[in-house]
Amino acid sequence: MLNVAIVGPGLVGGALIEQLVAHTQSPRFARLPIAVVGLINSKRMALSSTAFTAADLAQWQTTLLGDSAEPADLSRFADTLSAVSGGATAVVDCTSSDAIAALYPSWLTRGLHVVTPNKKGFSGEMSLFREIERLASSPLGPNVYHEATVGAGLPVLSTLNDLVRTGDRIIKIEGIFSGTLSYLFNNFSAPGASHSFSACVAVAKANGYTEPDPRDDLNGMDVARKVTILGRVAGLDIGTDTLPVENIVPEALRGVSTAEEFMERLPEFDDHFSQLNKEALQSGSVLRYVGFVDGVEGQSSVKLARYPLDHPFASLKGSDNIIAFTTERFPNPLIIQGAGAGAAVTAFGIFSDLIKIAERFGSGLADPKF
Amino acid sequence: MLNVAIVGPGLVGGALIEQLVAHTQSPRFARLPIAVVGLINSKRMALSSTAFTAADLAQWQTTLLGDSAEPADLSRFADTLSAVSGGATAVVDCTSSDAIAALYPSWLTRGLHVVTPNKKGFSGEMSLFREIERLASSPLGPNVYHEATVGAGLPVLSTLNDLVRTGDRIIKIEGIFSGTLSYLFNNFSAPGASHSFSACVAVAKANGYTEPDPRDDLNGMDVARKVTILGRVAGLDIGTDTLPVENIVPEALRGVSTAEEFMERLPEFDDHFSQLNKEALQSGSVLRYVGFVDGVEGQSSVKLARYPLDHPFASLKGSDNIIAFTTERFPNPLIIQGAGAGAAVTAFGIFSDLIKIAERFGSGLADPKF
Ligand SMILES: NC(=O)c1ccc[n+]([C@@H]2O[C@H](COP(=O)([O-])OP(=O)(O)OC[C@H]3O[C@@H](n4cnc5c(N)ncnc54)[C@H](OP(=O)(O)O)[C@@H]3O)[C@@H](O)[C@H]2O)c1
Ligand SMILES: NC(=O)c1ccc[n+]([C@@H]2O[C@H](COP(=O)([O-])OP(=O)(O)OC[C@H]3O[C@@H](n4cnc5c(N)ncnc54)[C@H](OP(=O)(O)O)[C@@H]3O)[C@@H](O)[C@H]2O)c1
Repeated sequence: MLNVAIVGPGLVGGALIEQLVAHTQSPRFARLPIAVVGLINSKRMALSSTAFTAADLAQWQTTLLGDSAEPADLSRFADTLSAVSGGATAVVDCTSSDAIAALYPSWLTRGLHVVTPNKKGFSGEMSLFREIERLASSPLGPNVYHEATVGAGLPVLSTLNDLVRTGDRIIKIEGIFSGTLSYLFNNFSAPGASHSFSACVAVAKANGYTEPDPRDDLNGMDVARKVTILGRVAGLDIGTDTLPVENIVPEALRGVSTAEEFMERLPEFDDHFSQLNKEALQSGSVLRYVGFVDGVEGQSSVKLARYPLDHPFASLKGSDNIIAFTTERFPNPLIIQGAGAGAAVTAFGIFSDLIKIAERFGSGLADPKF
Repeated sequence: MLNVAIVGPGLVGGALIEQLVAHTQSPRFARLPIAVVGLINSKRMALSSTAFTAADLAQWQTTLLGDSAEPADLSRFADTLSAVSGGATAVVDCTSSDAIAALYPSWLTRGLHVVTPNKKGFSGEMSLFREIERLASSPLGPNVYHEATVGAGLPVLSTLNDLVRTGDRIIKIEGIFSGTLSYLFNNFSAPGASHSFSACVAVAKANGYTEPDPRDDLNGMDVARKVTILGRVAGLDIGTDTLPVENIVPEALRGVSTAEEFMERLPEFDDHFSQLNKEALQSGSVLRYVGFVDGVEGQSSVKLARYPLDHPFASLKGSDNIIAFTTERFPNPLIIQGAGAGAAVTAFGIFSDLIKIAERFGSGLADPKF
């Protein structure tokens, strides 16, 4: 039995709960039993020593408000979970909180596995990353899986891990890691495309593809976090504080106070972006916003770059991510492409990680008991 | 400790040995100790209760001929391996033999894990596949991993497995699964390309990209085996005997007795292929030889098909494989692309599988002992 506790059931955590409920009702459950035993958000928590039923989970919002729930208390939450006997227990952090990521070492120390799409623990302070890595590295101790922190459900980190652990040499990792910036430049920078940059941003915002303030996408910080994670998994000493990141928010608009004002004034800079685009197209290329891990020269970066029309990055569509690993064994890169955001595919990445833990550690078939 | 025995050290097995030797000399070895304890080819075998040294392995050909080696005896080989104590033991089948694949059930029954790039056990008789699956499905018993049977080291089967086990619905899997046929059509069918089909085949043959008799590539059987494996892993009842496979060897040349005669007469059919290509290009498409797993209508097949110029299959280069998974969660497909053949990348796929077994079962750190 693998026991699972979910911190921050929101968009992604909710989709995960849905997938786990479907699993309990499928024949596969017999071979890979997974039980949800805890839920907590910033206000309430609920713990069940007998595992929640499918009905409890289907209406987890109500469960969190019900009689068996209580005010959130993360430390009692972890205490109770570490007392579960029968199989292994994994805490799934579905928040984007730094404070929660800072708790991973304490969870690991108590024997709790950690699975998460939250980038903070792996792209923040190097000391936290190293501590997490150290605690998760004993062969029989608890583990940390964070596939969904880069490319959501795409098999990006598992592939990188396999390359590294089997002794391949990472030459470079290059990719389009932001669904928003993928969508923007796939539409703005293509032969024959005729929309202004600001119009592309406006459409992306209207369709819900951007953060509430699109500057949070355009500043490149989310991509920088993903490049940091990839670089660190590849063994590099890299961090968002030292990585050169091209912020494509026009300087004059970085200080404006609201997203509305930013959107209103963005057209002033359309000529600037059009000019860049024209230059790229004239040289037979398109613009793409990429993250770049340099395994050889240490010149990792996040930047707006040009790719020739027959390059796989140039023919990308929609808001897909794409990641190319160039290694000693793969001088022509190994490429992975597909949706890199969305609740269902992110939950899929988490669920795949949980299955790996279930296979490795959850072999006892006993029911959970606190 | 994970103990490993290699059946058929040839091109791929030799590359695997090289990677394993490098591993024993890397700091990762301390965490994931892997020892080679047996080698066997069709003539000789060598077993070592203390594990072979890096020197023994670096010159494994000599080791197989040396004093401690003896005439090949597969049944004594398996007997000895199943008596190894200390960690888990995996047999790596690097042959392409049906006879060896038929032994997997007996190995599994003795508690030996099986890892292989050999397609035969998974694409032949359904009864053998089912038996292997059944024996490998107990949570604590030995396992079978065969990542390298499709796409060599590309993470194709692991991804499909993750999709299936987490409850995604496979709508279709479409791909270019043959390096040879990828190379042929990437060069023959592209806007502006001007070589005849027979000339493309001749170049591919001269570069060593084809089987000694190129008809063994052009008949589609290798692709049919890979489609069968993917289909079966996706849960379909599918086999090479019932799958519609487009054999692009011209009918008149199927019976000619030698590869030389085939190559000599192939130009007679250049007009036929040029006509197909012209029609494709006139409709803005290119020709690609693909395998297709249909998860919905049961219309799986292997065929020459057309893809529009902006489709990822159209911009493929060299001899890369490409695989697109269309599922409920990935309506825009999840795509994996890269070298799908070659000794080093195939060995990488095998080594990744071995690490999964080492993590799951090889946690005892004891040295091997028969
Ligand atoms: N959405 C995607 O496509 C995607 C893709 C890849 C990765 N991710 C990552 O997945 C994570 C979740 O994303 P999401 O879209 O599901 O976010 P979300 O809908 O905003 O959900 C976040 C949840 O975290 C809870 N939370 C926040 N701070 C907390 C705290 N200190 N203690 C307990 N609970 C706390 C919130 O609970 P309250 O309601 O009580 O505040 C909420 O339930 C993020 O790290 C994100 O970067 C998302
Ligand atoms: N090469 C690639 O790029 C690639 C890619 C993906 C998958 N694969 C698969 O990987 C496997 C190995 O390919 P390869 O290129 O390494 O082939 P290879 O060089 O021909 O090696 C085959 C080995 O198998 C041995 N063998 C054959 N029958 C045997 C038997 N009955 N008992 C014991 N040993 C036997 C041979 O030994 P003897 O010398 O004694 O006959 C030889 O050492 C094949 O299944 C192939 O389809 C290869």
